[in-house]
Parts: sequence; structure tokens; C-alpha cells
Amino acid sequence: MEHDTGPSRIPTDSELTAQQAKWSAYGATRSTVNEQPLDKDELDKLTRFFHATLYLCLGMLYLKENPLLREPLKKEHLKPRLLGHWGSDAGQSFTYIHFSRMVKKYDLDAFVVSGPGHGAPGLISNFYLEGVYSEVYPNKSEDVEGLQRFFKQFSFPGGVGSHMTPETPGSIHEGGELGYSISHAFGAVFDHPKTIALTIVGDGEAETGPLATSWHSNKFLNPITDGAVLPVLHLNGYKINNPTILARIDEEELIKLMEGYGWKPYVVAGSDLQEMHQAMAGTVERCVQEILHYQKEARESGKVFRPKWPMIILRSPKGWTAPRKVEGHYLEGFFRAHQVPLPKVHNDEEQFKMLEKWMRSYEPEKLFNEEGRLIDELKALPPKGIKRMSANPITNGGSIRKPLKLEDFRKWAIKVDKPGTTEAPSMANYADFMVRTLLVKDIMKNNPDSFRLFGPDETESNKLSAVYEVTKKVWMNGYLPEDEDGGNLATQGRVMEMLSEHTCEGWLEGYTLSGRHGLLNSYEPFIHIIDSMVNQHAKWIEKCLEVSWRESVSSLNILLTSTVWRQDHNGFTHQDPGFLDVVANKSPEVVRIYLPPDGNCLLSVMDHCFRSTNYVNTIVADKQLHIQYLNMEDAVAHCTKGMGIWPWASNDQGAEPDLVMAAAGDVVTQEALAATALLRQMLPELKIRFVNVVDLFKLMPNKYHPHGSTAEEYAALFTNNKPVIFNFHSYPWLVHRLTYKREGQHLMHVRGYKEKGNIDTPLELAIRNEADRFSLAIIAIDSLKSVLGNKGAGAREKLVEDRISSMNYAYETGLDPEEFTGWKWPF
Amino acid sequence: MEHDTGPSRIPTDSELTAQQAKWSAYGATRSTVNEQPLDKDELDKLTRFFHATLYLCLGMLYLKENPLLREPLKKEHLKPRLLGHWGSDAGQSFTYIHFSRMVKKYDLDAFVVSGPGHGAPGLISNFYLEGVYSEVYPNKSEDVEGLQRFFKQFSFPGGVGSHMTPETPGSIHEGGELGYSISHAFGAVFDHPKTIALTIVGDGEAETGPLATSWHSNKFLNPITDGAVLPVLHLNGYKINNPTILARIDEEELIKLMEGYGWKPYVVAGSDLQEMHQAMAGTVERCVQEILHYQKEARESGKVFRPKWPMIILRSPKGWTAPRKVEGHYLEGFFRAHQVPLPKVHNDEEQFKMLEKWMRSYEPEKLFNEEGRLIDELKALPPKGIKRMSANPITNGGSIRKPLKLEDFRKWAIKVDKPGTTEAPSMANYADFMVRTLLVKDIMKNNPDSFRLFGPDETESNKLSAVYEVTKKVWMNGYLPEDEDGGNLATQGRVMEMLSEHTCEGWLEGYTLSGRHGLLNSYEPFIHIIDSMVNQHAKWIEKCLEVSWRESVSSLNILLTSTVWRQDHNGFTHQDPGFLDVVANKSPEVVRIYLPPDGNCLLSVMDHCFRSTNYVNTIVADKQLHIQYLNMEDAVAHCTKGMGIWPWASNDQGAEPDLVMAAAGDVVTQEALAATALLRQMLPELKIRFVNVVDLFKLMPNKYHPHGSTAEEYAALFTNNKPVIFNFHSYPWLVHRLTYKREGQHLMHVRGYKEKGNIDTPLELAIRNEADRFSLAIIAIDSLKSVLGNKGAGAREKLVEDRISSMNYAYETGLDPEEFTGWKWPF
Repeated sequence: MEHDTGPSRIPTDSELTAQQAKWSAYGATRSTVNEQPLDKDELDKLTRFFHATLYLCLGMLYLKENPLLREPLKKEHLKPRLLGHWGSDAGQSFTYIHFSRMVKKYDLDAFVVSGPGHGAPGLISNFYLEGVYSEVYPNKSEDVEGLQRFFKQFSFPGGVGSHMTPETPGSIHEGGELGYSISHAFGAVFDHPKTIALTIVGDGEAETGPLATSWHSNKFLNPITDGAVLPVLHLNGYKINNPTILARIDEEELIKLMEGYGWKPYVVAGSDLQEMHQAMAGTVERCVQEILHYQKEARESGKVFRPKWPMIILRSPKGWTAPRKVEGHYLEGFFRAHQVPLPKVHNDEEQFKMLEKWMRSYEPEKLFNEEGRLIDELKALPPKGIKRMSANPITNGGSIRKPLKLEDFRKWAIKVDKPGTTEAPSMANYADFMVRTLLVKDIMKNNPDSFRLFGPDETESNKLSAVYEVTKKVWMNGYLPEDEDGGNLATQGRVMEMLSEHTCEGWLEGYTLSGRHGLLNSYEPFIHIIDSMVNQHAKWIEKCLEVSWRESVSSLNILLTSTVWRQDHNGFTHQDPGFLDVVANKSPEVVRIYLPPDGNCLLSVMDHCFRSTNYVNTIVADKQLHIQYLNMEDAVAHCTKGMGIWPWASNDQGAEPDLVMAAAGDVVTQEALAATALLRQMLPELKIRFVNVVDLFKLMPNKYHPHGSTAEEYAALFTNNKPVIFNFHSYPWLVHRLTYKREGQHLMHVRGYKEKGNIDTPLELAIRNEADRFSLAIIAIDSLKSVLGNKGAGAREKLVEDRISSMNYAYETGLDPEEFTGWKWPF
Repeated sequence: MEHDTGPSRIPTDSELTAQQAKWSAYGATRSTVNEQPLDKDELDKLTRFFHATLYLCLGMLYLKENPLLREPLKKEHLKPRLLGHWGSDAGQSFTYIHFSRMVKKYDLDAFVVSGPGHGAPGLISNFYLEGVYSEVYPNKSEDVEGLQRFFKQFSFPGGVGSHMTPETPGSIHEGGELGYSISHAFGAVFDHPKTIALTIVGDGEAETGPLATSWHSNKFLNPITDGAVLPVLHLNGYKINNPTILARIDEEELIKLMEGYGWKPYVVAGSDLQEMHQAMAGTVERCVQEILHYQKEARESGKVFRPKWPMIILRSPKGWTAPRKVEGHYLEGFFRAHQVPLPKVHNDEEQFKMLEKWMRSYEPEKLFNEEGRLIDELKALPPKGIKRMSANPITNGGSIRKPLKLEDFRKWAIKVDKPGTTEAPSMANYADFMVRTLLVKDIMKNNPDSFRLFGPDETESNKLSAVYEVTKKVWMNGYLPEDEDGGNLATQGRVMEMLSEHTCEGWLEGYTLSGRHGLLNSYEPFIHIIDSMVNQHAKWIEKCLEVSWRESVSSLNILLTSTVWRQDHNGFTHQDPGFLDVVANKSPEVVRIYLPPDGNCLLSVMDHCFRSTNYVNTIVADKQLHIQYLNMEDAVAHCTKGMGIWPWASNDQGAEPDLVMAAAGDVVTQEALAATALLRQMLPELKIRFVNVVDLFKLMPNKYHPHGSTAEEYAALFTNNKPVIFNFHSYPWLVHRLTYKREGQHLMHVRGYKEKGNIDTPLELAIRNEADRFSLAIIAIDSLKSVLGNKGAGAREKLVEDRISSMNYAYETGLDPEEFTGWKWPF
């Protein structure tokens, strides 16, 4: 119980209570490991190297000229707008330097993930001093001119952002949106047994939900076949404008929290640089030794266990090494140090002088040689070549990526003699079929260490459990007798399930960005949980396309199943197909949406997605039984075109149609076909053309999307003067949005999901949304008044009746009528 | 270190290791509190009441007739489709019954939050037996017929879903999407000092990110002015198809984890019902006593502190009381018990018999009287009236909601003598102005215990810090000397900041659903983090509109600031205005989007939002300096209409315009005005009409949205035959989507954000997106070719040049040209 938390009892600076001394980075240095591993010479070199990085951080924030202060600082040397963050720079640089020392000493294979994000200068400065930045960007050379360009480009129009953006060598984690550092790090070390991900976690970031649960990733890491993650929880103390929770709870609580998450925490806390160097040097070495020890034990014995992996709690002042106070207000050690520490340098003489004095206090003239390059003595400190963390090839994952080994999926073709009638159960359940064939028989078998399947506890519920025939779910925790009874768990599995969409997605992103392949499966409605992550990943890829040295990585493949139209008891909360709208906002260069109508199309689409790179592929495919339409040859042709006429369902051959019936999506395609059949049976004189769309962006004009179609191509399918009834899987207006520029769009009637669902049988849900066969046929008749005159009245009346009686049947029995569940294409 | 986790070392049932015994609910009952508070009679009654609830759970899953098994069970009594969940029913009912006992004994004011969601029958059965369900739904009466209807409606078309849906009395938390139980519970008890939220947390749910960080909510709860939350972490052991993490880590780890989160955990673990009753009875009583003790201590002393509030770890078998094995496979205690436990009852005689035997084992004939009502002896157990947790008025928050006390916002009017020229800084920064006036001077002052402001560490960054003039940020943790230097922290604050959008949103939802008011402010891009939560809240409200007894609750108000157009150094990751697309997918009855162009409009919009109920209001207003356009009278008129012509910016008076220039959003309105001014200066003969849209849904046809406009109203502004240049705050296609049905829409050119951002000055970012003044003027000229002929060529050339030179200026200097930053309306 803390009784001393009321504001009335806040002590002055000199009166810190014992409690407060533990929250504050000031006061005596504290460290779990008490060793003095550094001799005076090494200590001195580390300090000077550290100072060089901090000097560069300030240069990035403030200077556009006079980069080494070889002349007195003048106002015109300053950038006119000061942008960027200082707050966590020192702590991150400090951590990086110490781990680099270990990389060299133990010949490690490591890279860094910067969770705080807004402290990018702390790491970028290191990458420059290691030489990697100049190797990648020769005009940011290691001399005065290069340094000046390096400074100016930072947070400047046409330059680079203040995060670890895709332009930054060594980065696979931007950190613009917070919360994913640990899941990205784990994703990158799965199946990379030699790699250690040094992962700096911000104490602001640590308050996010995604980060808070991602600590549990350690339960899914196999010490034999995977690498290791060394988290450094950086207790800077403050966020933008608030103290952080983890920096202000009792340290005992914090240690328990980390132990509770299954880690072994080591504390390094203080502000005295010399003492902190000794403490950090001893601590990182202990951590590295423990990691190597556990790996050796597991690998030599062949026995898998879950070690209590080490992690570091680093408590250092926010804005460390800045002036403690400016104009009587706290700077270092307070949230004022978060962003640009001296914001008034342009107009305030005192701040201007303070900046110059501060920068000179790092003694740049002793750190850089005549040419403007770091002096050789310090240049010798970091590791060399690809051992430099910023040059680790996995951080340019495309450079080590090998294409998936895929066999010809055509051998798994579903035999379809007559479209719309094939229904052999194991065939017709096409999610299951896909996984049995493409995933299990080919991918999992042929790519045993470069493909994983991710899902939030839904792989089986999504009917993908056939995958367990070849691999199990990773589980590094305890086992109970019940698990043997169909639990499908193993320490070496390639299916990863945790009830956190955030963690699954983060793992997958880390896994693909570091050069491998994967697939995330999710209930359709809950994919919205990671809207923001997918947005950020798409932005990462978009930017990578502009970065010439970034090699292409595998696409992020998202399979949405358990879709809106068949949620049964799950009801209204589980009905939201709007993820497609979120995806469609991203760059056309990056996003793809596929709605395969049947099993052969799904196989063709998945094969394409698995071969593709640098996309976010969203595939929507319901998990339930479906009628099959196309044989493999037709399916491949159809998917390759992306959309097309289904002649077998059309009766406008050789003539202009009266009506186009179209659909994109599986359940809605069946309803649109059933509507077509009803119309043809009731009004045989009508000429109806049936169009199916697999690749949604085909609807867009080719000017706006690389998959878009020309006006001629579009009109060849949809006409530009006939009514189009379009049954769409998702919210209907997405189709309008994609086609609003098309000639004849005012004749297009789109049906889809509107917020009118509930617990429903599939047909009844469609009826509520007017996306059912009867409604489609009715609207078709209504839109054909000029053609049909009064001829459609009888048919219309019958359709209205059938519609009502279907609904009533569902309300009474809880079932769809058999005409629906057993429906087949009747011609 | 756990060396016994390999699958080869899984023991048989009888060989549970000591370790495993702690993961398993079987074996000896374990409890932190070892007391035997129940006498034989009470034990017996609790058991029978518990059995009655479990009988009802099975009835909901299986039966449509013969509800009390007064005749032998026949196949036709069964529901044809079996939907619903059994897994956590028993544990949830058990918890509820025991806490009800405490409510009665200590005369508590409590309600329940059901986190696992899919175990709704466990609680709904209690609500029925308490009589509340029948009071709310008289045809679900407490007799045989009512019970039959109660059973049939569950998970049935036209009935209620399998979660704690809005139709469920006593529920403010549906639990369809997992992760928000704790944040909702805290939201509901803030400023409700007498209330205790019994919060059952599923161990599946506990793996989600939002839940994992929401445990930290205890750092924001004031024991004097707020109520309490008693979490019961229900270790069922399994999710849908996997063990849960928290049920399989060492119990020592789990206890540390909870202690690390700042709670005091009490364990209750076992499967023997009699022992479990004693353990749970003793434990809940201890917890209640501790809660009351801490509250008394704080309230009597007036000293605020953060107690280590109690919480319960309840480990009971999944599907508790079901058969342990069916057909040789584990059912109880395994994931097979998650959903319908005997899925084959329709066709499998053995399962059919087993079901009847199982249901009869609860002895319904002894629990219900002739009429079909729970026998009086058991009926006497729960508390009475509104003390029943399902009848707590806060769970129908609208019933206790009082409108915010709002003064007339017109008194805070910004004086605007001449539109587009007023720029007094404190006035022009309208986010700051809004908060200084409406929020601080009125709302915070007049509503000291029913309004809170929520934000993820961004209230100050979003320039809303004037609020600290009247209230501070809640902080129940330690204080350091630095905090006195502008930290704005207090134990009794009304601003709630945690770097978790999920937690902030969850708190706000709980706060409004329990009858109060609030506002969430967020950076625009990161609101996508809670897309899914907002979706679910909108669905909750949508459904509430159909539930007659649910009184209206305050709208969920979301203020998006730090918007896409002014992200400075934050760059590409911080540029995403697509939340509006997500919102626009929800029911027109529920969602509203406002884009006030200036300060007086913002005041008017906010006043409206704060008075409104049952909406999700999204308000987009940039935090930076802005030119003011409308005096208060005009602003109110403009906002009331929702969109309108700005005559002072138009020169088509009395004539048909050649062109309509339109805008929705603040930054883009300024650019559209500047484009209008450029055109009028360069081509004075052009007749331009300027239209501003505040209420986005005004664009829709009135048939599709209650705020929509008729064809005539729309055409009166936009014409139906003239080019419209529309500058939009967000992705441009949203405007197309809202207007695709409008006559003349093919003449509409929309500009907005496309994924082309970076680190930019505001104008340069607009230029990249062709949403800048020059681009708008150029496209206007291009679309007026038929009117202008060659007359526009010179102007066009000049505009192209100016556009390029503005971009170059930004690249060179990092600034926008002064003509831009100092721009005013020139006429």
C-alpha cells in the first residue's frame, strides 16, 4: 500500500523518499549484476563513442550547416523548423553500443528493434558511425559534406522521417505506431536459430495492449530451432506529457510483473555515466551468456524447454545528458525532453548559447578527424561487415528470401463435370480442401523451416485443421493428459495460435520482413482488431517500393473465413465485412483483394498469393460447404482474368443481354446464380448475362489501379446501358466506390451486407439484407420494367411470397428451407 | 525452468505431476483462504440453486419443448440446430451466485461484467431465476410456458444471441469481441463510489492485448470517489481449441503476474463442488471485506492511496459438471466442452440418452414447482429488487443519466468581422479555444462528477491542455519533484490518460453506458487502433434502439485532432484519415460525422454532440492555428443546415454558377477558398459558388440517412450540371460513395488524401495529393474548357509554375511559403 502518493506530500528534489529513489533515475546507480568488467581504456572509448552518437542526434535535430561546429554556431546554421525527438535517444544509443560490444566479443548474429520509435536518432547515429548508412547512401558519406546532408535530411521535406522508417538500413520495425516491437522481434527470430533480436521497448509503448500481451511470446519460442529475443524495457520515466505506469509502480511490482510474464529481469538504473557503463556492460554480458547457455543446453540435449529468458529493465533519465534545467524548468529527467529540448533557439539567445555549449560539451573536435570521419580509435569499436547490427541481412529480408517451394496446384483440381452441381462433401468444403492440398501436401511438406500458419485460436474453427496431419501447434508450456486426446500440440509446430490478433499479426509481419512466408487466418469481423497494423504494414511496403536497396519480401497473406454470411449463433457482433474498405484505402501498388467463388479458384488464388511479393493479399473464403462451379482449367483462366462472364450460367449468347447479374464472393455468388435461375425459369425470354468477379480491383478503371480494367474491358462484361444487379460479399457501397466513374453506373444496383444482421440462418440473413435470390430477382424485374412491361408482375408476386415464406420458415424452425440448402444449378 | 514439457513426457491421467496438478482443475481443491463459512443447509441450497442455473443452461442449448422434462425426452423436443456455448457457463454461474450472496449479506451495490462472453447462459439463467428476465420480458414468464419460450429464443432466428447482448437485462458488456471486460468495468465504477463491478475475465480473453494492459486500470481508480472492480480470472483451461496461456504457466508465475499488475490474487482451484463452494464463499467474502476496508480507510482519512485491490483466480474445469468423457474422449475439462457438448444428440442414441440423463441429474422436478417456477426456498436466496445485480440501474445507464449542464455556448463566440481574415492567435487555435470555453468554463465546472475527458497521452499534444486550468490528470501512483513543474497530475482529476487507446475507449464506453458523459481525443491516424471497438459499440447502440426498455445513453464522442494534413515530422505512419470510412459503414441511425471548418462551428457542433444520445459522433478538427470564417450566428445556422453556400466567398449571386467549389474539413476548406480566390483573381468573369459541408451525411440521399438531403436540396447547392471541385479532408472516394446516386455526379472531382504522404509541410503534403489551392484551380480550369475555351491557358500555366515553386521552396527550406502561411481571404 502506498500512502505517500497524494500531491500534498511531494518532496523537494533533495528529499526523495526511498520509494521515490526507486522511481527516479537519479541517486545511486543500482544494478542486479554488480561487476566492473570495463577497464579504464575501454570505459573511456565507450564514453567517447556514446558522445559521438549523441552529438549526431543533436545535429539531426538542429543543424543544416556547420555540422562539426568548426566555426561558431550561427542562427543560419539551424534548421528553420525543429522537428524530431531527443527523449529516448541516449538510452537507446547506450543500449545499442553495449550490445554491439557483445556481438563482437561473442561473435553474435544480432539486429535491433527500436520500440520507442521516436528515438530513432539514437540508433541512426550509430548506423552512420558504423559506416552502414554511408554504404547504403553514398552521398551521406563519412565526411563533413556527407554529415551535413545526413543532418539536413532528417525530418525534412524530401528527407527521412523521425522513426526507424524503411529508408533506415537495419530496420524492420518503424515504430510510428507503438506496440509491436516484441511481436515483430519474435517473428524475426522464429526459425532463425542463430539470431538475437535486441529489442528496446519504450515504457510508453509498454502501456499499449498489443505490447502488454506480446511479452507472452516467450511461450512460443523453441530454444532449439528459434533464435532469442533480449528485451530492454527502457524506463525513460515519461511519455509525451505523462509519467509512465511502469516507471512509477514499485520496482518490486515491476519485477514481479516481468517474472510473471516468464522473464528473468535484470535492473540497470541510474544517471552516472561511468557507473552505468559498468552496470550495463556486466548486465548485457550476463544476459548473452544465459541465452547462449540455454540454447546450448537445449540443442545438445535435444530437449525442448522454456527457459526464463533474461530481459533488462533500464532506468535512465528521459533526455539523458541534456541540461537538467532550462529557464528554471526541468528538462533532463522530465517530459519536456521528449521532443526538441530547446525549442526557442531561433529567438532566445540563452537557449541558443546553451545549445552550442551543450553540443560542444561532447567535444566533436576530438571525435572526428580532419575529413569529418569518426577517429580510427573509435571506428574500431563496432563489429565489422554484416556483423554490424544495422547490416544484418535479415533486416533486408528480401535479400535472403527464397521463393516457397510450390508444386503445381493443378494436380489437386476438384473435378467439376457440370457447374453448380458438384457437392461431394470433402471437396465442397473448400477451406478444408485448400488446406489439405496446397498447404499441407505441398507447402508445409516442402518448406519445413520457412512457412508458418498464424491464427488467433481459430485455425480449427476456421476448418483448417487438416493442417495437423503434417504439423502441430507450437506449445512450449506444460502438457496435460487431455492434450493427447486431439490437442494437436507440439514443441515443434508450425501453426501458431494465441488469442491475440495483434500478436499473431506482429509475428507474421516479423516473419515475412525477415525473409520468410506465412498466412494469417482470422474470423472476418475480428480482423478489424488489426486494421491499424495492416495499415502500417501496407505503408511500410509502400515506402519500401521507393527504397531501391530493399529487396522484395513475401506478401502479407490474410485469409478471412468465418465470414459475415454464416455466423449462426455468433450473431450481430460477428458480422462485419468492412476490412475490405480499410484495405482499399491503401496504395493500389500494394493491396489486393480476392473473392474466389469456389475451390479451384481458391487454389489458383492462393498459389498466386504465395508466390507474390510486396503485397497485402486479402482473400475472403467462407469455411462452410459450397457448390463448385469451375473445373481447374476454367478456374485458372477465370482467376487470371480476375473477372469474367460465366457462359454456362448466361443465356445471352450471341445477343445483347437484357440484364447483367454479377457477384463477388462465395455465398453471394450462389444467391446471384439462384436468382438468375429463378428469372430464367419464370421469364425464359429474358437474356441474362452472369458475371463473376474474383479480383475486386478489376472493377476500378485501369488508370487508378494496376489491376484495373479499361472502359472497353469493363463494358464488354457489364455493358454501359443495361441494368446490372451486383451481389457483393461486403458492404455494398465499396462496389459503387470502385465503379463510380464507369459509364452506366447509374444502372447498377448493388446488394451486400448492411447493419441489419442478427442470429440468422444464412438465407434469412441474406433476406434481411436484400442480398438473397428472391430480392435479387425482384430488383431485376423492377429494373427491367421497360423491357418486361407487365409481364414480370406474376413472377414478382410469387418471388415476394416465397421470400416471406422462407423467412417465416427460419423463424419457426431455426433452419433454412431445403430448397435452399440443397440448391443446385438447374440447367 | 520447466524440463518436463516435451510431448514425449506427457503422463497418463493418474500420473499428474505436482506441476500438472497445479495446471489441472482436478485433484485436491486449493484455496488461498481456508475457511468453511457455509453450514450444511446453506451449502445444500447453493448447490441446488447452482444446479437450477445449469439445468437452464442446457435447456437454452438443446430444448424447444418439454422444458422441465415432465415427459420423457423426445427428439422433437430438441432444437433442430444446436447453437451456443457450455464451456464457461458453470464457472460464471458459480461466481455470480457466490457474489450475490455477498451482495445480500453486505447490502452491496453491484453488477456483473461477463468477459468470456460465450458463456452467457451461465448468467442469463441466473437473471431468469432472480425474476428480472420475466419482469423485463413478461412473456418469458416464470412458468412452464415462459420457460419454454425462454429456452427456444436462445440462439434462434428472431431471438437473442449467445452473448450478453443488449437484449439482456443487467448487461452493459456484450462480450462478442473479447478483451474489454476490465476497461468497461472500470469505466462504469468511476464516479460511482458505491458500486462494485464483479468482472469475470476469461482466460482466452486474457490473452488479448486490450485485456492484458487493462489490468493497469487500478492505477487510475480513486478509492474515495470511485467504486471498485473485483476481477475473477476464470481459468477454464482452454479456449476454442487450445489451452490458455495463463492456465498453463506455473501458478507462481501467474500470481507474480497479478501482483505485478498491482492486484492481490486469491486462488480458488478445484472441481469438487462442495469444497469449491466453501472455498469460493470464504474467498469472495474476504475480497469484499478488503474492498470495504480500503474504501473506509480512504474515505474516513481523506487520504487517497492505491490499495492492492483483491482479485480472484478461479480454476475450474471447462464445461464443469458435464460428463468427463464421451465416446472415450474427454469432454469436461477439455476444449470439446467449449460449445455444444453433445453435438450428435439428433442422430446418436447414446448421446441422446446421455443428454437426458445429464439434465435429469440436476433434478429439475425438485427445483421447480408445479407451475414451473423456482421453488420458494431457492427463490429466497438472491437479493431483492434493484439489489439483484441484473437489475442494477447503472446497467440501463440511460435510466439514471442526467443531461449535461451546458450553458449557452454562444457567449463564447469568436468575433468575426470579416470572414477569412480573423486570426488572433488564442482565437484562431480553435481546438484550444473549444476546450477553454465549452469544456473548461462550462462542462467541467458544471458537471464535476459526470463528465470525463479521455486520451492516450495526447491531450496536451492535441492542444487541449487548457483543461488543466480546472482539473488535472488522474494519477494514483507515485509522484516525483519534477511532476510539480507542470505535470498537471492529481489523485482527483477528470482527465484520464494512459497510452492505450483500447483502455481509454473502454473506460469511456463503460462510463457512458452507465449513464454519464465523456469525450475521447486522439491523433487521427491511431484511432484505427480501436476501429473494432467503435464498430462493436455502434452495433451495441444499433441493437439498443430495438430494445424498448433500454433508455438512451450519451453519445460516444470522438474528437480527432492532430489530423492527416499537419503531421510534420511524424510523417507517413501518422497519415491516415480512413476512420471515417469505418464509421460510415455502421447504421445511419447511429453514426454522425462532423467536419467543422472553424471555431464557432466547432463550438456549435460540440454543443450538439454533448446534448445528443445514442450516437457515435466523430468530430474532425485540426489542432493548429486556423483562419476564422463565420460569426456565431452564421456558424449556428450553417451547422444546423449541415452544409450550405458561403455567399461571401461566392460570386454567382443571382446567376447560375459556372463552377461549384466545395470543401469538407478545416485545412481543405482553406485550400479550396484559396483556390476560389486565385480563380476569381485570375479569371474574374467566372461565376464560382462556394459550398462548405460540416455534416458529412448531408451528402447522402435522404432515403439512406436521416441527415441526408433530397435531390432538390442537393441540387440547390451543387447543381446537377456544373463541375464540382470538392476538397475533402479524408480519402476522396468516401465523397463519391456518398454521392454516387446524385444527378451530375460524373461532373464531381474530389480531391483528398491518397497514400502519397511523407514528412511534409502542410502545403507540400496537399500538393502531393493534388488537394492544394493550385491543383484545385488547375482542375477547375480543366473542367471548364467548354466555358473558358483558351482563356484559361495563361492562368493555368501560372498555377502550374506556382505549384512547382511552392514545392521546391519546401524542399529547400523545410517551410511553406509565406503567401501560404499568412494567407487571408482577399476580397
